[in-house]
Amino acid sequence: MSDPIYLDYNATTPIDPRVVEAMLPYLRTHYGNPSSDHVYGHAAKAAVDRARAEVAALIGAQPAEIIFTGCATEANNLALQGAARALFSGNRRTLLVSAVEHPSVTQPMRQLAQGGWAVVEIPVDETARVDAGALEIGDDVALVSVMLANNEVGTIQPIRAIAEKAHAAGALLHVDAAQAVGKIAVNVDELGCDLLTLAGHKFYAPKGVGALYVRTGTALIPIMQGAGHERGLRPGTENVPHLVALGEAARLAREEGAQESVRIRSLRDALHHGLASAIPGLMLNGHAEERLPNTLNLSFPFVTGWDLLAGADALAASTGSACHAGNHAVSGVLAAMRFTPERAAGAVRLSLGRFTTEAEIEIAAQVLIAAWERRVK
Amino acid sequence: MSDPIYLDYNATTPIDPRVVEAMLPYLRTHYGNPSSDHVYGHAAKAAVDRARAEVAALIGAQPAEIIFTGCATEANNLALQGAARALFSGNRRTLLVSAVEHPSVTQPMRQLAQGGWAVVEIPVDETARVDAGALEIGDDVALVSVMLANNEVGTIQPIRAIAEKAHAAGALLHVDAAQAVGKIAVNVDELGCDLLTLAGHKFYAPKGVGALYVRTGTALIPIMQGAGHERGLRPGTENVPHLVALGEAARLAREEGAQESVRIRSLRDALHHGLASAIPGLMLNGHAEERLPNTLNLSFPFVTGWDLLAGADALAASTGSACHAGNHAVSGVLAAMRFTPERAAGAVRLSLGRFTTEAEIEIAAQVLIAAWERRVK
Repeated sequence: MSDPIYLDYNATTPIDPRVVEAMLPYLRTHYGNPSSDHVYGHAAKAAVDRARAEVAALIGAQPAEIIFTGCATEANNLALQGAARALFSGNRRTLLVSAVEHPSVTQPMRQLAQGGWAVVEIPVDETARVDAGALEIGDDVALVSVMLANNEVGTIQPIRAIAEKAHAAGALLHVDAAQAVGKIAVNVDELGCDLLTLAGHKFYAPKGVGALYVRTGTALIPIMQGAGHERGLRPGTENVPHLVALGEAARLAREEGAQESVRIRSLRDALHHGLASAIPGLMLNGHAEERLPNTLNLSFPFVTGWDLLAGADALAASTGSACHAGNHAVSGVLAAMRFTPERAAGAVRLSLGRFTTEAEIEIAAQVLIAAWERRVK
Repeated sequence: MSDPIYLDYNATTPIDPRVVEAMLPYLRTHYGNPSSDHVYGHAAKAAVDRARAEVAALIGAQPAEIIFTGCATEANNLALQGAARALFSGNRRTLLVSAVEHPSVTQPMRQLAQGGWAVVEIPVDETARVDAGALEIGDDVALVSVMLANNEVGTIQPIRAIAEKAHAAGALLHVDAAQAVGKIAVNVDELGCDLLTLAGHKFYAPKGVGALYVRTGTALIPIMQGAGHERGLRPGTENVPHLVALGEAARLAREEGAQESVRIRSLRDALHHGLASAIPGLMLNGHAEERLPNTLNLSFPFVTGWDLLAGADALAASTGSACHAGNHAVSGVLAAMRFTPERAAGAVRLSLGRFTTEAEIEIAAQVLIAAWERRVK
């Protein structure tokens, strides 16, 4: 059997072959430690500097505002634990967090709640969106954390409006943009955030590298201590090949992202149209417009997503959030959207990407329709 | 000019070409997220499982005792912060740490000292060795941290004797083996440690991957929270290509390490002999016998190591600990060995490895002798 059609780009992307090519010299030849004061070290350090500039350029930041990490989970932990520690001696004791965050935000928040912080959840509507107009941020709030785009349903949050309210109240804003960077334009000044997380493996760089944007002047206390790398915020010898990869992936996203998103959105909408025309009662999950262009989360009627995908093994897709499979409980995101158990159970996430073709989308529609009909009829 | 001869393997090693080959399918083809429940995910998960088994086999551990991390610094932080948090509610309030540890151990210890722990330094002799016979471990001690082999001078510590004393006192033992694994045989049961750190980029895997051995039954509270990867101790999507690399590097070290160390030791001793016969007053730093087979730290008379290497640009080597260059203050390790300022300033670390050749060693000796003679005469 040939490989299944990959429609799980939100779980992880393939590495772009151009990114692999950019990495190879740093796997094969330029092996120096960036901290070493000789030509091998200097070559590695220069590569890290270039990567930092590329990542900064992608999101409209200064290079010195980019802290490289081992993954987006680490960046989220550094942002939340780090800001909370830096702010703990102040008078503010409340943290606000949206109801649809990834576990790498909700779990650090849970720990902070045990450490003297009041953690208050910001609800979302049935499209998974925060109502920025209704959001109240008091002067007891130290930090607000709202993701830019949801990993499961793709809904994009009104970050700029949230940032304005946060800053008017004197609070910091952290934005988990792991699922957004590379899929939509992201600019830290337009968003107005103080901290922003990104993940290499969501935009065609390898797994095992991420970054935290830290706006100049934002104080963090690091979660690890060591030899002072990354302005003292993230010690440990730099993962040079992965940083080179992240830089190259950022360059590609900056240069090609806008055009690419048009193509992907068109394929995604064609897939949606094909399925909706054959499956009465098919429901779109997430916001109809304010949504990542690659993400199509649908609830199929009269089946579970699990059973549907089990009968569609020509596709690789996901039911809940693929980052924590093995756990087939109803997704916390869909629960926060107040879905009925039937609608939540019927949800399938189809996420497209750079290498998705029109032919694949046509087959995917046929496969899903046939699998649904076999289950239902 | 051709590339300088690389004698800085203790700073970082090249990636073995066989390790690069093993990684490539996971950069190019097998891109799944190990948490995804489809064939792409299953292939990635199987690769991570194989890597875990290889790393475990290298150090005589069970696979479930291996927690993958983003670097050895992270593994040291997880071990020290994690064990301290888990033990904090007990009666023991003292941590013991040797005087010659890496900053990724000393800096977390410094932070723990601010958090209610008494951190007591274990002195070393003029060879950088702990006197296990003289070591006293009271029943107030929760954790002892002593490295297996020193990064700067290569001295190997009497870990087994320290482990016996630690356990007799009811304390845990953490061993930073970042510089030892792959250079000497390491077996966690023979050492008797409870926690052990290793670093991929010190034994021919890439930078950006490490592991913490956690003996079954040893409680740790993680330093990051998220989606439950690595038995809940280290969340974040796995760095599959680097884990595959770490596994392959572990396999090579297990199969070839013993023979390789004989060859490297012989080259190292030839280099030492060549230099000593031409440079009166040359001093060996570190233990003469209980020392990594690849490490030659020498104090050259009447010069600084810095000036010597500046005049030997056909070589790439290091003066202090290359992991934190830019800082040319006297190394803390050499200070703990109570060196005179002259001896410390004259120190050069020559560290050999898998790709070091006899011809390189002959040239290196000539270059260093000529550079010394130009400076001194």
